[in-house]
Amino acid sequence: MTRIANLRVLDIRAPTSRGLHGSDAVHGDPDYSAAYVILETDAAHAGHGITFTIGRGTEVVCAAVEALAFHVVGRDVAEITSDFGAFHRRLTNDSQLRWLGPEKGVIHLATAAIVNALWDLWAKSAGKPVWKLVCDLEPEELAAAVDWRYLTDALTREEAIEMLRAKAPGRSAREAEMRRDGYPAYITSAGWLGYPEEQVRRLCREARAAGWTRFKTKVGIDPASDARRCAVMREEIGDGCDLMADANQVWDVPQAIAWMKHLEPYGLRWIEEPTSPDDVVGHAAIRRAVGPIGVATGEHCANKVLFKQLLQMQAIDYCQVDACRLGGLNEVLAVLLLAARYDVPVCPHAGGLGLCEYVQHISMIDYVAVSGSLDGRCTEFADHLHEHFVHPARVRDGRYVVPEAPGYSIEMHPESLEALAFPNGSEWRRA
Amino acid sequence: MTRIANLRVLDIRAPTSRGLHGSDAVHGDPDYSAAYVILETDAAHAGHGITFTIGRGTEVVCAAVEALAFHVVGRDVAEITSDFGAFHRRLTNDSQLRWLGPEKGVIHLATAAIVNALWDLWAKSAGKPVWKLVCDLEPEELAAAVDWRYLTDALTREEAIEMLRAKAPGRSAREAEMRRDGYPAYITSAGWLGYPEEQVRRLCREARAAGWTRFKTKVGIDPASDARRCAVMREEIGDGCDLMADANQVWDVPQAIAWMKHLEPYGLRWIEEPTSPDDVVGHAAIRRAVGPIGVATGEHCANKVLFKQLLQMQAIDYCQVDACRLGGLNEVLAVLLLAARYDVPVCPHAGGLGLCEYVQHISMIDYVAVSGSLDGRCTEFADHLHEHFVHPARVRDGRYVVPEAPGYSIEMHPESLEALAFPNGSEWRRA
Repeated sequence: MTRIANLRVLDIRAPTSRGLHGSDAVHGDPDYSAAYVILETDAAHAGHGITFTIGRGTEVVCAAVEALAFHVVGRDVAEITSDFGAFHRRLTNDSQLRWLGPEKGVIHLATAAIVNALWDLWAKSAGKPVWKLVCDLEPEELAAAVDWRYLTDALTREEAIEMLRAKAPGRSAREAEMRRDGYPAYITSAGWLGYPEEQVRRLCREARAAGWTRFKTKVGIDPASDARRCAVMREEIGDGCDLMADANQVWDVPQAIAWMKHLEPYGLRWIEEPTSPDDVVGHAAIRRAVGPIGVATGEHCANKVLFKQLLQMQAIDYCQVDACRLGGLNEVLAVLLLAARYDVPVCPHAGGLGLCEYVQHISMIDYVAVSGSLDGRCTEFADHLHEHFVHPARVRDGRYVVPEAPGYSIEMHPESLEALAFPNGSEWRRA
Repeated sequence: MTRIANLRVLDIRAPTSRGLHGSDAVHGDPDYSAAYVILETDAAHAGHGITFTIGRGTEVVCAAVEALAFHVVGRDVAEITSDFGAFHRRLTNDSQLRWLGPEKGVIHLATAAIVNALWDLWAKSAGKPVWKLVCDLEPEELAAAVDWRYLTDALTREEAIEMLRAKAPGRSAREAEMRRDGYPAYITSAGWLGYPEEQVRRLCREARAAGWTRFKTKVGIDPASDARRCAVMREEIGDGCDLMADANQVWDVPQAIAWMKHLEPYGLRWIEEPTSPDDVVGHAAIRRAVGPIGVATGEHCANKVLFKQLLQMQAIDYCQVDACRLGGLNEVLAVLLLAARYDVPVCPHAGGLGLCEYVQHISMIDYVAVSGSLDGRCTEFADHLHEHFVHPARVRDGRYVVPEAPGYSIEMHPESLEALAFPNGSEWRRA
């Protein structure tokens, strides 16, 4: 029995806006940040979990974590994980706190930090990385981690168990393949909107030399400069590589459709977040209009009910699940199952602070246990801030190297937690 | 020139859970609460605004208000209101804070409290109730209060101005009619789920005697007790009165459809929140299946983009806009215009703390300036906590009496703010 003795939450921020890292059409000056949760126990391990934010307001998410803490402090870890779906329902349906969402925004970001810390703790106790812990679960156990409420018109628990069972025979072969080859990735950090052209060219060349074959650029300023940006990237990476574009929610629906005409010459694989992340109907209309360019979204998709509808309405070609926009891994598992049910590839959102560390586990789970496919899949990578993690994400030849350390790879060095503590850490005192 | 010198935010809670007031299928023990904003100025008036919450977590919304405050403190009120739509965009699209939503959950609830306080301040300065201030705006001015982003595939600013212009001729006649007759309402506070049957019977009889002809009950426990509850209400109010039912999001889509078969005998006018408030596709499916019972939703509808889709997908018969779930009156105006465009009646959500005070203005605006119709309209009323307001909502013969005091009717008595302050007010020290 491992009892959660205490929950600590830290406001952690990196001053990334100084270099315009992460800049896009609507987030001009992100300071990559996190509400960082530590679940202290009476056993050997502590559980670490973060939710990613971009600066101001991280203190609000920390306040929401404090409000939810009473649901875990004093509880036994195995009691929670043995009926994890029911626990998830209790956490997201607290009779008073649910008014603040339900299951969206600040309260759901806070839920993710706590829930992911529980998975980290469970995996450390089991001596396995999170992906391996999940892939070793029986289909019934994995399905029991999901709160099935609101999903049954698209997928029931029983159907999910059948799907998982059908994929079970190939699991160990796929595991071995991943350990040998790694998981396919694409790189975003060459194409931030705030970077001057020469910096973009240099970063593209360096990335090509390092084995990258899939690239993403930011768009959404004006058609001429967007076209220029795509042309520069295409020139540097050549026709044999994939190029994706990300508009970060900047357009109305008719505007997105018109704008994409200007970008047709650059052979884009997808346009990401062309409009409001809440607009299922709008994404479906855009998708019908801009093919063969695919439509991708998900990093701001508030919960599994939104993903369910994006899939039901055939509104997306790529499902960009986020590790902490949803209420932690339990809800991510629900979305992996829904996407497999609708045969839509999952290409997780990453970058920021810790998201690459998280999503390598999610993509492993998707391939080994859920979809069993790499068709159309590639996982985002951005080369920022990995030095702060005890077990940082690693890439080789444009692919994620399978993480092997026990846990969810999200624990940061104590020195980093000190340096990035806001507003009194050494990094901020220096500024 | 009126400068906003300071923003104060208070955590206000009423211990309503002690009497099971407000109890329903998912909110078993609400303590009606508010993040209460005061905009102090260098002029005669202060602006007051609240966002409604139900207890735990109100402190999180207060933290979000503090995070947004720098957008208003030091600003001139007329500078804000003269281009109110642009200001609303700045507030909801702060380059870092928008990550916490965007435009949903805690950060949007906080936005509402600030924005509604600005309207209160503007109306007090103009010496008019908010509804009258809005109805006296030129169509172009009213449309300029809306941020049109993400709406243009359903309704453009120019189309909205045309709609408003077409309704302008009858405005003063409708105003006079409302001052004479009041605005039609329905009552919820007879049918809370936690009330025993005898209490429900007594409250129904008292409400009938006071002139009420429209009633709502809570459902969603089990088909047998729901049927019993509907039968009791129908017995007391007779066949000539309207009866509505509210499930507060408790069902999955197939379950909602099946459950409503059990409630067919009771002649329900609508079923409210049959499933997840985010499920546009699900509401559309339920609506197709349960007619002639109507489908109503909106109190948890996160923003205008969700309402747009509910209307585009013909998913609702009644649009239950909320005064502070959306980002304040500017966004409510957008939804009134959208609903009029799709010819769906707006029946605002109310009850709680201060919501009746707010929505009487919204319904007046809808009738006088926007839709010009009462067909299918009635506005919620619950008889709790009005004594705390300086200008409380009043009803007569089951209709709201038109508010005439300058402002948004949301200012509370100083003694109430002291008594309900959490956790140190006299009401809580006594508990």
